[in-house]
Amino acid sequence: MKKIKFTNSVTIVANGAFPKSGIPKDILDKSKTIIACDGAANTLDENNYRIDAIIGDLDSIRPDIKDKYDDIIYQYPDQSENDLRKAIEFLISNNVKEASIIGATGKREDHTIGNIFSLSKFCSKINLKIFTETGCFICINKDTEFKSFKGQQVSLFTLNDKTKITTKGLKYNFNKNAISTIFYGTLNESVCEKFHVKINNECAIIFLCFS
Amino acid sequence: MKKIKFTNSVTIVANGAFPKSGIPKDILDKSKTIIACDGAANTLDENNYRIDAIIGDLDSIRPDIKDKYDDIIYQYPDQSENDLRKAIEFLISNNVKEASIIGATGKREDHTIGNIFSLSKFCSKINLKIFTETGCFICINKDTEFKSFKGQQVSLFTLNDKTKITTKGLKYNFNKNAISTIFYGTLNESVCEKFHVKINNECAIIFLCFS
Repeated sequence: MKKIKFTNSVTIVANGAFPKSGIPKDILDKSKTIIACDGAANTLDENNYRIDAIIGDLDSIRPDIKDKYDDIIYQYPDQSENDLRKAIEFLISNNVKEASIIGATGKREDHTIGNIFSLSKFCSKINLKIFTETGCFICINKDTEFKSFKGQQVSLFTLNDKTKITTKGLKYNFNKNAISTIFYGTLNESVCEKFHVKINNECAIIFLCFS
Repeated sequence: MKKIKFTNSVTIVANGAFPKSGIPKDILDKSKTIIACDGAANTLDENNYRIDAIIGDLDSIRPDIKDKYDDIIYQYPDQSENDLRKAIEFLISNNVKEASIIGATGKREDHTIGNIFSLSKFCSKINLKIFTETGCFICINKDTEFKSFKGQQVSLFTLNDKTKITTKGLKYNFNKNAISTIFYGTLNESVCEKFHVKINNECAIIFLCFS
């Protein structure tokens, strides 16, 4: 098995929609270490990207790709976890402190939801950002200031009604409020070049729209 | 204002990705009543679909479309609700008992999440199904049997950990369990031609993959 040297720009490529343009493609192009979730290795190889590790239960990787990358495949057969969460666990076990995720959305919508809310599982262990064609999801478990711009569309999601949020710099601010239903934190926007989110416990997932 | 005659096949078209093929397009083609959420009216008109009502805050409808359909526009300016939820409220206020929703996904992922979980708000008042390119989301608030097929991919989502679920006919069944985190109910599948979901309170959202 080849030893992986992790750098400061690690990207996990999940097996959703492969980025063709824009910010997700830029991130992939600039990545120093690329981790493929199972069948994403097929698409990375077809598009001539270097692959540093392939993680998953290997139910969607092509046999020829499996042979080609035999020395960097880490097979985790556990069917109760998805390949993205396995890849994140792999990074944590290798002491990686931050990573970008692309390809986590764009195919099955139940997988999209599952992938986005998976961020909450790892919030205290690794800084992760999911980049989609339209924006970026970030999970926070402490008070955080976000760089922004006036009019930037922002959505906030929490996992339960025990999590209370206070915001400053948004059009519709929270003041120690719970997000009572999952959709009540959507449709917000930033009013200047930064905004703050304070959180009392657990974590929140913030979506920052690119435009 | 023109009076709308509601039939038994009402479809709401939200302003996400417009269906080009497959089941969502079939549903739209067969609809007797078509309700457009704001800017979806532009796309419906471009694709020569009849529109029976246009609902929303009218921030994305084109001026020429707004003029053309002036007599079927219902403007609801409330910025704290999105256009899909306004359209659903409109159907409820007109005593419609069931409807399909298309175009609720496929653009911004925060809107996708918001739209899907919006089903929970209306579960006791109207039977709604969100059809995407890959499957169908249904919200239930009582014990329900689903027609299925062996190997059909299924995901279950609840809104909080007070909701306990019992299933029969799935690969990984629940036995009065809570879905502790939002992604723990994904990656399931049906093992035969039907499956059951029992629910103790509130509601659950079920995703049935087409293939």
